[in-house]
Amino acid sequence: MKKKKAVVALGGNAITRKEQEDTIENQFRNTTQSLSGVVELIKDGFNLAITHGNGPQVGNVIYRVELARGKAPYLPLYICVADTEGGMGYMIEQCLRNKLKQENINRDVVTVVTQVIVSKEDSSTVNPSKFIGQFYTREEAENFARERGWKVKKDSNRGWRRIVPSPIPLAIAEKDSIKNLVENGFIVIAAGGGGVPIFRREDGTLQGLDAVIDKDRASAVLARDIGAELLLILTEVEKVALNYGTPQQKNLDKISLKEVKKYLSEGHFPEGSMGPKIESAIQFLESGGKEVIITSIARVYDSVKRKAGTRITV
Amino acid sequence: MKKKKAVVALGGNAITRKEQEDTIENQFRNTTQSLSGVVELIKDGFNLAITHGNGPQVGNVIYRVELARGKAPYLPLYICVADTEGGMGYMIEQCLRNKLKQENINRDVVTVVTQVIVSKEDSSTVNPSKFIGQFYTREEAENFARERGWKVKKDSNRGWRRIVPSPIPLAIAEKDSIKNLVENGFIVIAAGGGGVPIFRREDGTLQGLDAVIDKDRASAVLARDIGAELLLILTEVEKVALNYGTPQQKNLDKISLKEVKKYLSEGHFPEGSMGPKIESAIQFLESGGKEVIITSIARVYDSVKRKAGTRITV
Repeated sequence: MKKKKAVVALGGNAITRKEQEDTIENQFRNTTQSLSGVVELIKDGFNLAITHGNGPQVGNVIYRVELARGKAPYLPLYICVADTEGGMGYMIEQCLRNKLKQENINRDVVTVVTQVIVSKEDSSTVNPSKFIGQFYTREEAENFARERGWKVKKDSNRGWRRIVPSPIPLAIAEKDSIKNLVENGFIVIAAGGGGVPIFRREDGTLQGLDAVIDKDRASAVLARDIGAELLLILTEVEKVALNYGTPQQKNLDKISLKEVKKYLSEGHFPEGSMGPKIESAIQFLESGGKEVIITSIARVYDSVKRKAGTRITV
Repeated sequence: MKKKKAVVALGGNAITRKEQEDTIENQFRNTTQSLSGVVELIKDGFNLAITHGNGPQVGNVIYRVELARGKAPYLPLYICVADTEGGMGYMIEQCLRNKLKQENINRDVVTVVTQVIVSKEDSSTVNPSKFIGQFYTREEAENFARERGWKVKKDSNRGWRRIVPSPIPLAIAEKDSIKNLVENGFIVIAAGGGGVPIFRREDGTLQGLDAVIDKDRASAVLARDIGAELLLILTEVEKVALNYGTPQQKNLDKISLKEVKKYLSEGHFPEGSMGPKIESAIQFLESGGKEVIITSIARVYDSVKRKAGTRITV
């Protein structure tokens, strides 16, 4: 029987948790825990690509690069993202290999450093809004804006930060190799941190962009590009809800593409949290995908058994 | 016709050069230049895996981690190596994609973050000798040795440095996926910086090791593991020589495995330079490889046409 192909997008809390220090030891421990549901999916016979965020990790790389200015070579943001694809991919792959070994499951794992094509004319490159890196005083931020051409903005009451574009992903550069691997039964870790944003110059060659891509949007494009039937978006809540956080909150078990588009237009899914996940789900379903499940890491296996999560179908 | 499978090990000077600052711009420029010969091999129909060093890059990552101690999470050496596999793999892949595009060659490129299995009981883990990272005063070095458990040693007259193990690579964890990709015509960038050293714990699970692997030795193991016929080791000289740097220097065009083992035992190939390359060549030929070529980056294409380089065959 042909195996079902799915993309699993691990949420940020799969690896780093707000209440902990983001040490490597904690990251390995959290990742190992978080992969339990993924291992169940593999046992069940799924062919999988796994994506993940890199928020705290890329923030740390950027911070180290800043602290080393004048002492070690400067790294543009796209190289920092690529670095985290290496380090985090290594970690996730090793944690998964170890869990599979412990359960005597004979499946192989591989990490692909992923470049994601965006448009240089994306609206977010004109009006960046994604906060990245450290907090600064207003004066520091304005100096950096002058000296380095950064765009900066106040982020809550904690201070000023750099803002970068978060362009819409258009295609995965390595889609054919990832598809080949997934269809041959390899579990592929890909599009880490949303992948490295690249654009095509006029002559057709590729160039990195100082930007970050939303990992759920990148996951939807990856799922489309490798012909996956299912996209699983893992987050901190078990179900998508209407009127979230109000007395009228209504959790959703199963909804249609048409319904979810209506709810989105009614403003049920805020831009900073559920919004991009729902938009990613819509994008995948409108580009040929069959099913999207949004649920928590703990409930991923139950969700494919239709015992948990929110299922969105065409 | 079945394509010939080869592993090309790029030398350190393919990416960074002593006479230049190791900025990202210079690294991209050098890499693009260095890949000309590789593009000729691809035109010629080779199926390729490409490996590369990471000396200056991993040194910079370690230095940034040191400068950020107490401010950003500490990264063990094996994560630093994995980070460089991401950032450098991204760069090399992109440079190669761009060159192939410019020459209208329809071949795809992919980067695999590679873990390399070593023995924790390797003699080099007992007596480490590979210098890594920054220079320190004797006092600083001795403090680090006490506080962090580092082993330190005087490196020439420039100061004291950390020394780490450089264990013999035993196998490539991702060999099956890399083999699959190479045999399907993808150009695969793998084992960057020699790969991340890992060992098996008693329970069979994997764990990173604070060590670095010689990239030529890792390339030989990769070439064996993917069943390559040819291993190309690129370095700064066009040919291997006997009595190198003396009036009796004799460049070698073609030698047998038996001859090269004799020359090695006679001390013609010093440990710090040609030695590990020759040992890697021997290891590959004794494990089923057909041919090793050692030559300069500029002469790689000529060397496969038997117009340059040193060919070693069984």
